[in-house]
Amino acid sequence: MSNPSSDPAAWQVRESALSPGGAGSRESLFALANGYVGVRGTLDEAQPSDSRGTFMSGVYEYHPLSYPEGGYGHPEHGQAVIGVADGSTVHLQVDGVPLDVRDTPPERHDRVLDLRAGALRRETEWVTPRGARMRVRSTRLVSLVRRPVTALHYEVEAVDRPVQVVIRSGLVVNGTPPKVRNPDPRVAEVLAKPFHPRVHRCHDTGGVLVHRTAESRVGVAAAVDHDVERPAGGAVSTQCDEDQVVTTVVADVRPGESVRFVKYLCHSSAVDDPADDLRDQALAALDGARGRGWDGLLAEQRELLDEYWADADVEVDSDPELQLALRFDLFQLLQAGACVDNAPVGAKGLTGAGYSGHTFWDVEGFVVPALSLLRPRDAARMLRWRASTLDRARERAKVLDLAGASFPWRTIDGHESSAYWPASTAAMHVNADVSRAFSWWAAVTGEVLTAVGGVDVLVETARVWAAMVHEDHEGGVHLLGMTGPDEYTGVVDDNVFTNLMARRNLRAAADACEEHPEHVGRLSVTAHEIDRWRSLADAVHVPYDAVLGVHPANEGFTTYREWDFEAKRDGYPVEEHFHYAKIYRRQVVKQADLVQALWWCAESFTPEQTARDLEYYERRTVRDSSLSAAVQAVVCARVGHLELAYDYLREAALVDLRDIQGDTEEGLHLASVAGAWLAVVCGFGGVSPDGEELVLAPRLPARLHRLAFRLRWRGHRIGVEATRSGTVVRLLGTTDGEVPVRVDGQRGTVTATRPVTVPLSTPRPPTPEPTQPPGRGPRAS
Amino acid sequence: MSNPSSDPAAWQVRESALSPGGAGSRESLFALANGYVGVRGTLDEAQPSDSRGTFMSGVYEYHPLSYPEGGYGHPEHGQAVIGVADGSTVHLQVDGVPLDVRDTPPERHDRVLDLRAGALRRETEWVTPRGARMRVRSTRLVSLVRRPVTALHYEVEAVDRPVQVVIRSGLVVNGTPPKVRNPDPRVAEVLAKPFHPRVHRCHDTGGVLVHRTAESRVGVAAAVDHDVERPAGGAVSTQCDEDQVVTTVVADVRPGESVRFVKYLCHSSAVDDPADDLRDQALAALDGARGRGWDGLLAEQRELLDEYWADADVEVDSDPELQLALRFDLFQLLQAGACVDNAPVGAKGLTGAGYSGHTFWDVEGFVVPALSLLRPRDAARMLRWRASTLDRARERAKVLDLAGASFPWRTIDGHESSAYWPASTAAMHVNADVSRAFSWWAAVTGEVLTAVGGVDVLVETARVWAAMVHEDHEGGVHLLGMTGPDEYTGVVDDNVFTNLMARRNLRAAADACEEHPEHVGRLSVTAHEIDRWRSLADAVHVPYDAVLGVHPANEGFTTYREWDFEAKRDGYPVEEHFHYAKIYRRQVVKQADLVQALWWCAESFTPEQTARDLEYYERRTVRDSSLSAAVQAVVCARVGHLELAYDYLREAALVDLRDIQGDTEEGLHLASVAGAWLAVVCGFGGVSPDGEELVLAPRLPARLHRLAFRLRWRGHRIGVEATRSGTVVRLLGTTDGEVPVRVDGQRGTVTATRPVTVPLSTPRPPTPEPTQPPGRGPRAS
Repeated sequence: MSNPSSDPAAWQVRESALSPGGAGSRESLFALANGYVGVRGTLDEAQPSDSRGTFMSGVYEYHPLSYPEGGYGHPEHGQAVIGVADGSTVHLQVDGVPLDVRDTPPERHDRVLDLRAGALRRETEWVTPRGARMRVRSTRLVSLVRRPVTALHYEVEAVDRPVQVVIRSGLVVNGTPPKVRNPDPRVAEVLAKPFHPRVHRCHDTGGVLVHRTAESRVGVAAAVDHDVERPAGGAVSTQCDEDQVVTTVVADVRPGESVRFVKYLCHSSAVDDPADDLRDQALAALDGARGRGWDGLLAEQRELLDEYWADADVEVDSDPELQLALRFDLFQLLQAGACVDNAPVGAKGLTGAGYSGHTFWDVEGFVVPALSLLRPRDAARMLRWRASTLDRARERAKVLDLAGASFPWRTIDGHESSAYWPASTAAMHVNADVSRAFSWWAAVTGEVLTAVGGVDVLVETARVWAAMVHEDHEGGVHLLGMTGPDEYTGVVDDNVFTNLMARRNLRAAADACEEHPEHVGRLSVTAHEIDRWRSLADAVHVPYDAVLGVHPANEGFTTYREWDFEAKRDGYPVEEHFHYAKIYRRQVVKQADLVQALWWCAESFTPEQTARDLEYYERRTVRDSSLSAAVQAVVCARVGHLELAYDYLREAALVDLRDIQGDTEEGLHLASVAGAWLAVVCGFGGVSPDGEELVLAPRLPARLHRLAFRLRWRGHRIGVEATRSGTVVRLLGTTDGEVPVRVDGQRGTVTATRPVTVPLSTPRPPTPEPTQPPGRGPRAS
Repeated sequence: MSNPSSDPAAWQVRESALSPGGAGSRESLFALANGYVGVRGTLDEAQPSDSRGTFMSGVYEYHPLSYPEGGYGHPEHGQAVIGVADGSTVHLQVDGVPLDVRDTPPERHDRVLDLRAGALRRETEWVTPRGARMRVRSTRLVSLVRRPVTALHYEVEAVDRPVQVVIRSGLVVNGTPPKVRNPDPRVAEVLAKPFHPRVHRCHDTGGVLVHRTAESRVGVAAAVDHDVERPAGGAVSTQCDEDQVVTTVVADVRPGESVRFVKYLCHSSAVDDPADDLRDQALAALDGARGRGWDGLLAEQRELLDEYWADADVEVDSDPELQLALRFDLFQLLQAGACVDNAPVGAKGLTGAGYSGHTFWDVEGFVVPALSLLRPRDAARMLRWRASTLDRARERAKVLDLAGASFPWRTIDGHESSAYWPASTAAMHVNADVSRAFSWWAAVTGEVLTAVGGVDVLVETARVWAAMVHEDHEGGVHLLGMTGPDEYTGVVDDNVFTNLMARRNLRAAADACEEHPEHVGRLSVTAHEIDRWRSLADAVHVPYDAVLGVHPANEGFTTYREWDFEAKRDGYPVEEHFHYAKIYRRQVVKQADLVQALWWCAESFTPEQTARDLEYYERRTVRDSSLSAAVQAVVCARVGHLELAYDYLREAALVDLRDIQGDTEEGLHLASVAGAWLAVVCGFGGVSPDGEELVLAPRLPARLHRLAFRLRWRGHRIGVEATRSGTVVRLLGTTDGEVPVRVDGQRGTVTATRPVTVPLSTPRPPTPEPTQPPGRGPRAS
């Protein structure tokens, strides 16, 4: 495999000037996280800011949900991620004047998110109103190795004049309430100051705070300390109260001198643990981090990232923007999963408070499948968290008068907290999506399902489907009143995606029970129940419009009135311009739905059906959701519309770097981030985890000379490199053993010494390249 | 026609003891109203009370509607009826002890709502703790003749000892906030004190208050005065402040002596009128009422009621409970409509604040049709109010991206204010229901549609349907994503009731345009548009289940999973025990839906289909709504299941007197009240307004010896009397002219001197008597 790009720009997301707007999206793009704790990429001096803060996975508070017209089973409590003790702020004053880029634009500003270092570096040169030139350098790091640890190296240098420097380095709780969209004033009230003080203590250079929430009873400890180097005569002191620890450095600095410190921060959280235990955990982590020292932390971080890139890097020669975007996406997957444990991954990871920090089906739909192929142990921890909520899903199924377990549409603690059921409770496909993630993980890792609690999940979700089906006079099995992934078509009958996913879920549960007979008794599964799952799966009705020769997304979809895309060119996003009562029965598609079935349930469609269905839905899909482009990329690539697939890949990969959805300020679009990588691997790479062999079908769009990607497959590290002259599949590292592969249908075996090489295939697609609604083509081409 | 019952008990709703609970339902049952102002039937001394107050039609305030997850076109403002200046309270103290039946139960308590007098009389005998026997007599009246006028005759007599009597007679604003179910604290805050003071003034025996709301800008004036007769030495005085006028009478009363007064109250309201104008209107009405005097007011009331009963009375020999209930219902129709003008009739009339005082489709569905046959001018005023909201309905149609006008599910001011769209915006049948009321009124009165703005309403609602239809590959016309009257089945395709009502609406609009060519230009209706309405109407798809031989309530309904009624016996009302996501696709029916189509769209069903469909839905209808029993009664009667029909008639008629729904405390069920009368007239009477003749088909259940009812038909007063020996149809009063009738298909002509007599028909129903889910048979049999 050729040597990875050595151009540093291909590994750096850079900001070389501060534009007036866009503070929010910059805070998301430069956020650092490790899946346990995350810090928004706000400037050290805190302003200008859109919504700054530090978040921890699984740290949230409940709030009331008020329905003007409620109903049985509508969740009574919302959940919202809340900012924990935030230590990202360092206020700098020089001769009494604060560093504030809004007042005095810096002479030079450079921020770099270094994807190989795993750190955010900043350099600012700034001339005070009195004319003193100052140089500020900071490097921020959230350890991917030590989950509690955040660290900051901060240095301020007087370039040309003697100055007095005052630095206030804070750790603040309840300081930055989230933006609250819920108009019920009780919600803002609860979230304004969610933490109640338990412990506060400080010494010269730092201190510790422990707080707890009132309703969710989550306790959080945060400890801070500073190693300060300062000119002679300077002073360091720390004050604290219930909600803050502030360390102050005062120094007279001569030209060429600096004030320099490392700020170590450690967070620890748990439900119901005594405050002292939390405090001790944070302090122990702090001792560990200080023991390692700044350079040690940097080195650890680099080492982990070197390993990651060796296993995970994607190379797309001849498209530097996409190259950087895909590495940014891979870095974000690592940031989302590296240290997550026993907590959900939110739709935004820990990069922002969007969607209130909730996790959705798209984490299992995209993030877990990607990580299963990249860092399977991270994926396993995510799945174990989901499995750990099974009892809450069982409760929800009871509320819905169903058997089995029904997973929530959106949640932090495992309880459903969606307030609009037609797009949540009716979207029962979430259960099959969750199940698919367990099956996918087991298939690509070769590990047993039981290692992640998968048998229980498959059985209980199969039971939900079995409890929901309707049988018609001829024995056909239907799922009625469902909402598929397309949120512009709701409460419909026989959504094809849902039906096919239910079929897979039922069969996967039956298979799992037969493979793990030791669990059958504990879960009270009978042979009769397994038979019923199989026969229901066989009888699932899949509507087909024989007149048009396409699959309707659901029964009747193709007879819905067409949407007048031309006349409604200004009506995007559609849901903000038209009523659900209208769009639910129009041929306007928010996001891949039937098209997602063409990928996820590919076994149910012939290649010709796939091509025709894709063309039909391309004309009607407006992509108001960030979940869509990656899916469209995969299916376009598989049908052979490689240029279109490439455009969709770019849209998915650049969703945040170009702020394509216009809401990156709320946090990164983690599913699109994962989807972009899947578009490379499952779309252009043709990877399918459907058997014992690693299935590949590499394709290259005209604009790419070379595409290389790496993945883990059943314990092996695999490298795939496609060029015009052919595809080479290699076993990476020193692994022994052999990996059976099937490339474009050709079987082969890869060993450490013998790659498999096959010619590049470029099949002619059976249909012309599809078109999209006016103005709704790929948005990053 | 035989002489109406002379048994006074057949005209009196009596309460002869005060039970501890039930204050709320008594307040509803004894409420007095005239369609303009209504007073809850609270005891004069105000306690015990559930929710007292005085309401006026069209007097409401806006409040925020907060959606945790909102959407485009969801109403941002709620509306709620608010209590106006309440003058119903008279606090009595005897020797310093208040009359409070909770502390000292009265020796005798008797309250009578006299349906012929139109007054609420009360007599209480009460012994004070010191042993003084007091006799209190009061009579309360809300004038059915003079819309602003409420009056109270109050008398307190010392029976056996000299006592000091102190009476405080109040007029209070902002004193009794409504029960607020909306958990958003802003709603309770807005509604706690909705009125802002404008004017307050008083003199010795009374005063006047004018207030206005902040957002809806509704002004209300209330004037009060007292004519007091008291023993020598007594004193009368009045104090007032911004929110109250209190008149105090203090007197030493010897045995056999009384303090006696008449309290005159007049209300006036208008949007944006100057306070002085409102005050003057209230004061002028007060002068008028005092000029007429108490006896004069009583006499006017009696005269109006004598006329009403002569035109409207129903007689059911051999069932005194039903007899009284039907008269109570007829009285409530009068109370709802007598003086209503330029304002909606709420689902509870003015008898309570249930449903926030909103009007719904059932007012046009039941109340207007009944009043069209009883007091057609009241019905006309209701229809004119609806027509006056056409511009707001046009706005709503625009919001929904539809042509024409779309009437709201619930409203006071004409704007949609429902916060749950699957049961409101999706229930587009409301447009056809409103249209039907206009057509019905024109058909039974023989008046031109234009007198009530009907052409505009029919045209604009037809346009909504034309804008919504979907055409399938074969040209069939569908309405998708609708919710019919059955609120347990939502967001479905081709709801038969909705489709057939849309068909009627389209045809009625086409007919109206052809009959009123002078309006076609103003409304920009073209011949092409009319043709399109007719061809759409012809092509409307009506699903039919050929396997079962019944109409599915909507496409696929008969393949939905059956409801396990036996296992779920304790799960009523169903919506409070099961999630919509489940019940929307189960064969459990809240209320007549397909069965309502069997009545309202009878032309679309053969008698055999009607019987089979009725039987099918009877087995699946749980009647969790008060809108159902009357409809079931009509269809059962028409099919020939007379005993079952009679049981449903009793349930509908007694809905409040027996508190069958358990929520009479929130106000009376006006649609059921009207429905009961329609069950008599359209069910057992077989009346249909479908042509030039008055169509009748009288039937008598075994339990009735004689059924007589009266109605207005095209300007004539008609009496119908059915006994075992036959049916006699008479022209009542001194009307000239002749009325063509068709009784059981036999044509005849009724004149003042020549009734039509036909034998009683008792056809054998084509199906056995249907059964209901366990425990869900008629509830007043």
